[in-house]
Amino acid sequence: MSTLNDLLIQTESHRSIFENEVRKLPLPVCKAFGSADKPTPVAFVNTDKVLGTKDAATVEKNFPNTVKASANTVLKAGGASTAAVSGKRVAVLFSGGPAAGGHNVLCGIKRMLGDKNTVFGVRGGPAGLLKGKLFEVTEADVKSILNTGGFDFLGSDRTKIKTPEQFEMVKKTCVDNNLDAIVIVGGDDSNTNAAILAEFLYTGVKADGSGVQVIGAPKTIDGDLQIRGLLPISFGFDTATRIYAEMVGNILQDTASSLKYWHFIKLMGRSASHVTIEVALQTKPAFTLISEEIAEKKISLATIVDQIAKTVIARYRNKAIKHGVVLVPEGLIEFIPEMNALIAELNDALAHHATEFAAQPEAGRAAFIQSKLSADNGRLLGSLPAYVVKMLLADRDSHGNLQVSLIPTEQLLIDMTRDRIKQLDAEVPFNTQNHFLGYEGRCGAPTLFDAAYCYNLGLTAGALILEGKTGYMASINGLTTGGEPLAVPLPGLLNVERRHGKDEFVIEKALVKLDSPAMKYFESRREAWAADDLFASPGPRQLWGTAARQIPISVALNDQASTLEFKIG
Amino acid sequence: MSTLNDLLIQTESHRSIFENEVRKLPLPVCKAFGSADKPTPVAFVNTDKVLGTKDAATVEKNFPNTVKASANTVLKAGGASTAAVSGKRVAVLFSGGPAAGGHNVLCGIKRMLGDKNTVFGVRGGPAGLLKGKLFEVTEADVKSILNTGGFDFLGSDRTKIKTPEQFEMVKKTCVDNNLDAIVIVGGDDSNTNAAILAEFLYTGVKADGSGVQVIGAPKTIDGDLQIRGLLPISFGFDTATRIYAEMVGNILQDTASSLKYWHFIKLMGRSASHVTIEVALQTKPAFTLISEEIAEKKISLATIVDQIAKTVIARYRNKAIKHGVVLVPEGLIEFIPEMNALIAELNDALAHHATEFAAQPEAGRAAFIQSKLSADNGRLLGSLPAYVVKMLLADRDSHGNLQVSLIPTEQLLIDMTRDRIKQLDAEVPFNTQNHFLGYEGRCGAPTLFDAAYCYNLGLTAGALILEGKTGYMASINGLTTGGEPLAVPLPGLLNVERRHGKDEFVIEKALVKLDSPAMKYFESRREAWAADDLFASPGPRQLWGTAARQIPISVALNDQASTLEFKIG
Repeated sequence: MSTLNDLLIQTESHRSIFENEVRKLPLPVCKAFGSADKPTPVAFVNTDKVLGTKDAATVEKNFPNTVKASANTVLKAGGASTAAVSGKRVAVLFSGGPAAGGHNVLCGIKRMLGDKNTVFGVRGGPAGLLKGKLFEVTEADVKSILNTGGFDFLGSDRTKIKTPEQFEMVKKTCVDNNLDAIVIVGGDDSNTNAAILAEFLYTGVKADGSGVQVIGAPKTIDGDLQIRGLLPISFGFDTATRIYAEMVGNILQDTASSLKYWHFIKLMGRSASHVTIEVALQTKPAFTLISEEIAEKKISLATIVDQIAKTVIARYRNKAIKHGVVLVPEGLIEFIPEMNALIAELNDALAHHATEFAAQPEAGRAAFIQSKLSADNGRLLGSLPAYVVKMLLADRDSHGNLQVSLIPTEQLLIDMTRDRIKQLDAEVPFNTQNHFLGYEGRCGAPTLFDAAYCYNLGLTAGALILEGKTGYMASINGLTTGGEPLAVPLPGLLNVERRHGKDEFVIEKALVKLDSPAMKYFESRREAWAADDLFASPGPRQLWGTAARQIPISVALNDQASTLEFKIG
Repeated sequence: MSTLNDLLIQTESHRSIFENEVRKLPLPVCKAFGSADKPTPVAFVNTDKVLGTKDAATVEKNFPNTVKASANTVLKAGGASTAAVSGKRVAVLFSGGPAAGGHNVLCGIKRMLGDKNTVFGVRGGPAGLLKGKLFEVTEADVKSILNTGGFDFLGSDRTKIKTPEQFEMVKKTCVDNNLDAIVIVGGDDSNTNAAILAEFLYTGVKADGSGVQVIGAPKTIDGDLQIRGLLPISFGFDTATRIYAEMVGNILQDTASSLKYWHFIKLMGRSASHVTIEVALQTKPAFTLISEEIAEKKISLATIVDQIAKTVIARYRNKAIKHGVVLVPEGLIEFIPEMNALIAELNDALAHHATEFAAQPEAGRAAFIQSKLSADNGRLLGSLPAYVVKMLLADRDSHGNLQVSLIPTEQLLIDMTRDRIKQLDAEVPFNTQNHFLGYEGRCGAPTLFDAAYCYNLGLTAGALILEGKTGYMASINGLTTGGEPLAVPLPGLLNVERRHGKDEFVIEKALVKLDSPAMKYFESRREAWAADDLFASPGPRQLWGTAARQIPISVALNDQASTLEFKIG
């Protein structure tokens, strides 16, 4: 007994049997870095790819130093580095929602910088950078966090560094800690921030007039930070989609076992439907909604519901199947044209009539605001169930936007589909369950792919720092053919967008393209998946054995790879 | 491209890369069965364990044949069988909610019966048995379903075989298909059904006067079918709790990464808190409610909320921690003494005043029924939030019982905890998320333990059939010391319980015992887990590698095992 009790106490604090074993997993490195045991610094050379958006001129004016230095040219690793750099002090921070593999980015940076340079962790994300919450990362830390999930070694937050005071605070942190470089691990907004900071800190930061380098690393489970041919995918996407795909696969298996339910499953992923299409490709459910397709083809809510209802009816009438799974992307509601129009007018009307609206009794609010809308939008609002109306009228976020994640889209679709089935063929059974898969996917233990990919992103970021580069995002391309370290010039990705009445620089979120190979493949199979149970269960992520080395299916398709097996090194 | 498209189409219909690989996993067998390649039939001999409940005399009167045959004595494997049985025709059915490993039970039965006997699958559970929906299971089927999750090869349902007409229908199915035996894979109710069918079919079923054997196999993710020393655990529990524990571990990792939320997570498992305590032992969260403790110690809802609130406050005040996880067992609400009393009186009042109640306008129903309750219960109902009252007054199930799973206990606890924190220390931040983990745990790919355990349960069931036994449940004991096949006489487990105004035989659900080693260990650690983040992340279930061979922690503790590693064979 006491043996077992002792063993159990030893598993506390991130020392489960699994966690202890994954720490020992060896990680491959790209050939550019030499041996996996002792990866070595590399030099970077220009490729022939020069980036630029429609707003390139405005960007160049606002990012004179970094654009001049990079000429917006993508770099690739080009042989061993000849510089023997020492004494560099580098701070690493996690920004925004966590994603699997962040710890390995930090480990890769530390490994590349070696024992002649110093790596600091920033506690609590950008807010921690403002306050100078730095601590030195040790070799023991690397051993302890390698291949583990989440961002908990550092913590994270969502502070955007925007105001002049905030920029001065960053500068102060750099000076106080005598920093030479900052690595920002984050999504589109955080990498935009990295671009702005790189320019701001380009020169004249420290007493000797020198600047501070800023490098970004592409993180987001949403997958909306990806550039065909340059950045196959953001890290964390593979782990999150594999977690969701396992759950969806389990539920599909359950539908065919219990033989009675339709499960409507909403999947995290904000605006883009990358997560949803990947989970669909992994599991092959009966029905999958892709927001981008709905927006582009201007499909109405009524048509969506009609399509789902007809699928339910056809499966029952043709195959006596009373069950199925419908995948719903989190951001769907804003992509349905008439809902989008309604929400836009509601945002205006609520802002315009805020005082009067607040003065209405709870029960009268919907009618009040309905009277302020155009006839079409008023009618649409009136046709929605009370729980949806309630969320549509709920408090806006700090930017005045609707909090879409709070809208129970999956329940709305269930209720409307039930009504539609009653109209079309009332005998067809339609019992339902609904789910939202979100938080459980952000901090799982990284897949072998995310673990290896992130470690190499870290090595690349570290190598860029050793080479004195700034204003780049680290990337690894060619994920099934050995892996090639790239540096993507951040200003080359920037657009100008009107936000809250001001022009702001942004990296546009990558949405699912209807002409992408992943979408084309999905389209070619979805009717067969709707007609009959052809689902598969991708199972739990394996870190050992013969089922452990896959990249996301959508990434393989879009990269025109010939295999799902990743190959780094 | 076309290579990858072809590969992807090949993964449809249960042929994911993972599913293809798990089918090849070799399974160990208990020494009693000889070699894993060719397990051989065994004879069964009496142990010195004789079972019986307080109702043994009533049971003996109602189960004269099976009690006489077994003398309620537990059997164990006792050397190779000398009988060379052929020509047996055996039907296997899944009953109730699915659980991981059911397919392997069927595979074990088929393997043990060999090619000289015939195994039939029953489509769609007990309802399929009534209708005679049988089909022959082939060797190819075994290869295709081995180690895969869910019950989808056969399907399942929740029909209880109770009426004389139903018993006659079963008899007809036996005669029509010339069956010699039925194996019922199910939980407490289904094994009660197996006991009753074994008695009913004991003799005189077929033209030659012979009977039909009935054998049970212990399935339920809830873990409430377990007998210390005889049946360590029902199958499916390990897989379900490992799935939930991975999700809870991911969320714990998320709390420590995002640094802002308390997550309240409700866990499936019906009345008993076995699932919850196992998940707590795997993950070490800040707060875990155990229904049985609340009932036994008569802890009020206010006290529960007060304890959670004080934990939230202490973590913030002592360690500046603004996050944590609270685990809530699905059945909690009925174990809180005053809620239990309220629900009981509500059930009566709603039944008694059904017509008047239904005639009330929606908005007046709560007040109407409140006026019919005792002062205490009326007050309690009045103090609950509207969304809980609504569920408490919702339609009862077919047995007139409240549908507890519909009550948003986790949301109730969040709202009450928020109010309590405001009273105690209003400055303490308390942002929350809630989850219900349920369906995603029932049909996952079995853990290596469930896969091996179920296969050996199937071998045992098959061996019992070959030996002509009836009225037993198959079990494997000694899970960390090689595994010992046992046969538990089902009538020895039966109690008499008043249900719907009638005496019925039931196998009592095993609840968490407060003096069990698992509970004692949990108690010894929970204060430390509340005070600081000591959580661990058990990670995804591994089928290969060094982290793949664990049994549930609560099972190991309760079995007084010295290791978590299972050893069969």
